Amino acid sequence: MVTLKDLAKEVGVSVATVSRVLNNSGYASPEMRKRVMQAAERMNYKPNEVARALNTSRSNIIGVLVPDISNPYFPKVIRGIEDEAIKNNYRILIGNTDHDFDKESKYLEIFNQNNCAGIISATWTVTRQDNLTTRPVVLLDRVVKEHISIEADNLKGGKLQAHHLIQQGVHHVLLIKGLEDYSSFENRTLGSREVLGENQVPYEILSHTALNGTLESGDIAFLEKFDGIICPNDLVAYRVLNVLINHGVSVPDQVKVIGYDNLDFSQYVYPSLTTIEQPIYQLGRNAFKMLMKMNQGIEVESEVLDVKLIKRNST
Amino acid sequence: MVTLKDLAKEVGVSVATVSRVLNNSGYASPEMRKRVMQAAERMNYKPNEVARALNTSRSNIIGVLVPDISNPYFPKVIRGIEDEAIKNNYRILIGNTDHDFDKESKYLEIFNQNNCAGIISATWTVTRQDNLTTRPVVLLDRVVKEHISIEADNLKGGKLQAHHLIQQGVHHVLLIKGLEDYSSFENRTLGSREVLGENQVPYEILSHTALNGTLESGDIAFLEKFDGIICPNDLVAYRVLNVLINHGVSVPDQVKVIGYDNLDFSQYVYPSLTTIEQPIYQLGRNAFKMLMKMNQGIEVESEVLDVKLIKRNST
Repeated sequence: MVTLKDLAKEVGVSVATVSRVLNNSGYASPEMRKRVMQAAERMNYKPNEVARALNTSRSNIIGVLVPDISNPYFPKVIRGIEDEAIKNNYRILIGNTDHDFDKESKYLEIFNQNNCAGIISATWTVTRQDNLTTRPVVLLDRVVKEHISIEADNLKGGKLQAHHLIQQGVHHVLLIKGLEDYSSFENRTLGSREVLGENQVPYEILSHTALNGTLESGDIAFLEKFDGIICPNDLVAYRVLNVLINHGVSVPDQVKVIGYDNLDFSQYVYPSLTTIEQPIYQLGRNAFKMLMKMNQGIEVESEVLDVKLIKRNST
Repeated sequence: MVTLKDLAKEVGVSVATVSRVLNNSGYASPEMRKRVMQAAERMNYKPNEVARALNTSRSNIIGVLVPDISNPYFPKVIRGIEDEAIKNNYRILIGNTDHDFDKESKYLEIFNQNNCAGIISATWTVTRQDNLTTRPVVLLDRVVKEHISIEADNLKGGKLQAHHLIQQGVHHVLLIKGLEDYSSFENRTLGSREVLGENQVPYEILSHTALNGTLESGDIAFLEKFDGIICPNDLVAYRVLNVLINHGVSVPDQVKVIGYDNLDFSQYVYPSLTTIEQPIYQLGRNAFKMLMKMNQGIEVESEVLDVKLIKRNST
């Protein structure tokens, strides 16, 4: 093991000078920099984490992929991951993919270059074939065949949404779908449809792509056809509430609206939002714990956490 | 320049095998891994970004430090930085410091190890002495002596808050301070106090530390003493509104509340929040552009963007 002292002796300068160059922390002339770097290379000195990472061991960094950091769901997940990571002397690198496969690939490259100890991803679609990485991966809120994942029971959550609206006496439901290809949204829709079907409550489905058009045009005639609206997440519910209220539609008297996630803001919107609570922070913490076990070669099974209804004033 | 092919020839294996080892992407025996890595080192092969970074050039990664990713202000700043970064073929590493100096130091280490091309920081306090990095730094929403920074006019914003409440006829104002030591909050308070003083409107100041106690205890007798409340940001305003409304205090009739930031959610809360709009996304974009100029050796001056009042139903 070559030490800083060995290196300083070889170059014929002080340990402080060598340290400044290697840590890139303070002045050193280009000439001095070159001499020290060449000696470091020649003597196979490993100055830092990056060098250690190159040396085939894994770094104490994990990569986290989220589709959209602007949705407060993800910062909360990230806090769960990060708090647990810090406790274990790990750090996280966050990649925001914007549902864009190219961006995701770039971040996976960066994770490889940093020799990340593993990856927690909330970006993998159900049709995903290629791993793009040989590192341990835990999928968060996404279930993809042959992968370890953690989610909060999306099927149950979708059922709870429909059950609650039916209990509140709705007769005609609009079921707004989330982004296609994510298992979480698929299962929520599946759960809601199952319960609506069993109870013979007629419903229409609005696709994620059609949603923006409906809300931006404020197509109130369309929305008013229903007395219950099931939203794929709280963010969509905020926008739906906003369009309804701005057009003088009474919520919950005329239309009842239910969200999904229970973001912190859902208690503050008007009317305060009935929603399904996911243990968001816990999902992040557990995902990190699972990843650490996988790294230690301990066998890990996919986890499903519980969800519950939070009744507020929008239903 | 040593190529993969040179390396494969030297080790006596296929290019695919060498690539698998160097990119850590697929199976290679420990023995094979060792042979390839040793040859790579011997021939001074630079397999990837990390190796390039070690070789003294800067990587195409920039580090971003935020105090609290749960405040939607920061994800929006990050989107601005990231969108501009991607356009320029850069990537960002995000560090969430939680106002914790140790966490921040750790992230600065990671940024050094990744040989980041520069750092955008929203975490530096006014009393900050030590840089901890020799890389170019742009401070965002923070002004610290002898550093390049970008902010939206906090002094003006604070003045606008007070002006608006006075115009709405308030007679006794509660001025809630933001976290100490951040220039942005200091300047907002300064602006508000100046205008309140000029107009001889009496006011009391509630420190950031005292705020939680007041809100958690729901000390409504204290809050009701005032007919106007100036909040340091929208998140605080949401909580203040919530306590007031839950205690049957009429907003804006009895108490008028004004926020700061204009987060997306501020149009959805009840009552919808009057606030000061910062060009949050633009702050992020410009910060990245400034950093790129600094990297090119172009002289850069600190920037101050404009803010404006958004009038809604809470005043």
